[in-house]
Amino acid sequence: MNPRIAELQKAAAGRPDVIGLAGGLPADELMPRRELAQVLAEVAAKRSDALQYGWPEGTEKLRTWIADRLATRGAPVDPARVIVTAGAQQALSIVGAAHRGERIDVGEATYPAAIAAFRQAGAHVVSRDGELHYLMAGIANPYGVDTLEARRADMLVRGGALVVDEAYAELRFDGALPRPLLPDAPQRVWHIGTFSKTVCPGLRVGWLVPPAREHDSVLDIKAAADLQTASISQAAVVRLLGAIDYDALVARARGFYRRRAAVLAEALHRHLRGVRFTEPEGGFSIWVQTDDGGDDIALLEAAIAEGVCIDPGSMFRLRGETGPVAFRASYSNTPPDKLEEGARRLAKALERWRSRT
Amino acid sequence: MNPRIAELQKAAAGRPDVIGLAGGLPADELMPRRELAQVLAEVAAKRSDALQYGWPEGTEKLRTWIADRLATRGAPVDPARVIVTAGAQQALSIVGAAHRGERIDVGEATYPAAIAAFRQAGAHVVSRDGELHYLMAGIANPYGVDTLEARRADMLVRGGALVVDEAYAELRFDGALPRPLLPDAPQRVWHIGTFSKTVCPGLRVGWLVPPAREHDSVLDIKAAADLQTASISQAAVVRLLGAIDYDALVARARGFYRRRAAVLAEALHRHLRGVRFTEPEGGFSIWVQTDDGGDDIALLEAAIAEGVCIDPGSMFRLRGETGPVAFRASYSNTPPDKLEEGARRLAKALERWRSRT
Repeated sequence: MNPRIAELQKAAAGRPDVIGLAGGLPADELMPRRELAQVLAEVAAKRSDALQYGWPEGTEKLRTWIADRLATRGAPVDPARVIVTAGAQQALSIVGAAHRGERIDVGEATYPAAIAAFRQAGAHVVSRDGELHYLMAGIANPYGVDTLEARRADMLVRGGALVVDEAYAELRFDGALPRPLLPDAPQRVWHIGTFSKTVCPGLRVGWLVPPAREHDSVLDIKAAADLQTASISQAAVVRLLGAIDYDALVARARGFYRRRAAVLAEALHRHLRGVRFTEPEGGFSIWVQTDDGGDDIALLEAAIAEGVCIDPGSMFRLRGETGPVAFRASYSNTPPDKLEEGARRLAKALERWRSRT
Repeated sequence: MNPRIAELQKAAAGRPDVIGLAGGLPADELMPRRELAQVLAEVAAKRSDALQYGWPEGTEKLRTWIADRLATRGAPVDPARVIVTAGAQQALSIVGAAHRGERIDVGEATYPAAIAAFRQAGAHVVSRDGELHYLMAGIANPYGVDTLEARRADMLVRGGALVVDEAYAELRFDGALPRPLLPDAPQRVWHIGTFSKTVCPGLRVGWLVPPAREHDSVLDIKAAADLQTASISQAAVVRLLGAIDYDALVARARGFYRRRAAVLAEALHRHLRGVRFTEPEGGFSIWVQTDDGGDDIALLEAAIAEGVCIDPGSMFRLRGETGPVAFRASYSNTPPDKLEEGARRLAKALERWRSRT
């Protein structure tokens, strides 16, 4: 990512007068704070394994929960194949390290930290025709809609490994979880999931299910990276999942984000000119496209000057291309009145930026 | 590491009848369990940043504490240079990734997961004459004694980067923390530390201070690896450090491990024949050498058959060399009576193994 974007966004994040539509954070108010406080205290006080070193693959209880949930979705998996990771991000990084020197295709625009994870691990990222295909199931980032189902059959007949990132799959507003690709191509699918969007990101708990024959070498990569995922986080998640109704938590989150998405979409329609976007089907963000050429860092600067922060489209593009200018606006962790005001400020920023270019 | 060793040790770890002298775990009874339970509950309940995403470098409060502590040891460092990592292990992995294709020398025997971290990240590990030198300050693993101070002046006149791992530095029994190498070679030192040995490993909190000019590219590696170190762990450590007397915690740990080291050393002297070792100056383990050739995996098998588990010396050697056979015996998380009995079983295992070879 362009360091200037990071610098601008970080400065803006420290200003309470700037409405934050960047970053795509889960809503603070949805996190099961009280329950987490309780289970964290319980496991720290009672279970020595919650503070001690553990095995690199993660705890059996957590791996079993993950495998059971996959099984209910039509993807029976031996818990021994699941590797608990430090969020989905570490799973992406491990996938990159397991394919050093190979090409991973990601399409025209994708999650910026996936590009970074693959590249830093030593893989090559391309827009198409790689030996691996990076896919986001259910909801694609930055688009906010599913982009996989229509290509599903095609992906299965094509060769190559399928890296399936389900980070947002649980957060489709219609609750229609896609059937995992895993059982359709068990030799080729690298399945990735996370609790970051549904429970909270601060625990850093996700998972990776590599093809069975890759398990042992992938586990060596994981162990070398950080020995193991935090014992305290794993133990807390296991206890939390036993104490709460996870499906109800996710259902509540879907409704919550659907309402916020509607507010932002409506406000963007009302205030912005010369833009287009698809109403999100889930997730945290709206991908807004324009027909304007030009410098989207200048657009970010104009937005911050008006008191709103967004993610410039070039962040999501493979070589940081700017035009035609697009941006991602996240509604997930911003109250409705600020979404409305944020759209108003964005409209002014767009006008200001257009008048300059 | 030889997968057979991992398999044998993992099976042994699941057997309550086997006395565990492998692994080098901090003592369960030293972990500030009650205090951690309280601070974890407090930060989860009260601080939304303890559950939310944070910046890749870690929280300012934690980086400031780490910098302040280095300053009191004669190494003033700007907190902006500190990067919070998932334990010292992730710091090692990042060092490897920042030196892909380069050679890191580690001496004749070293911490096995450092070898794995460097290799998996794409660096080459050599016993001597690398472009980087991996050094453990205060106490070297597996030796249990300082191996750096005598070479300190020499290391400073030699060229190359100095990767200084202080994992055990706080746990010298004499409390004589070595003066950090950092101020003597600020352009070349990669300083690594951790809370894993003094507070607990299950939080996964360590740190890396790369040379200033490397900071930004190293931070990109960290962000790509897992976005950030667990917010909950960082917030809990900061609050814990404000609530307890860390120096007293470390002082208590030094006395505790010194007593256990004395018990194991005495028992090994009493029971084992044809071995030699240096009394540990700190840390968790004793490095026991023999003049025997042969297969140290067979020695591990013999030990487990007698009801005791150790770390075979080949684990610590660069190419997994076995002879002359050595092993590491850890006293850190084993009660004194079991240390005594463990030495007795080890003596039997050695006899049994020698009679076979």
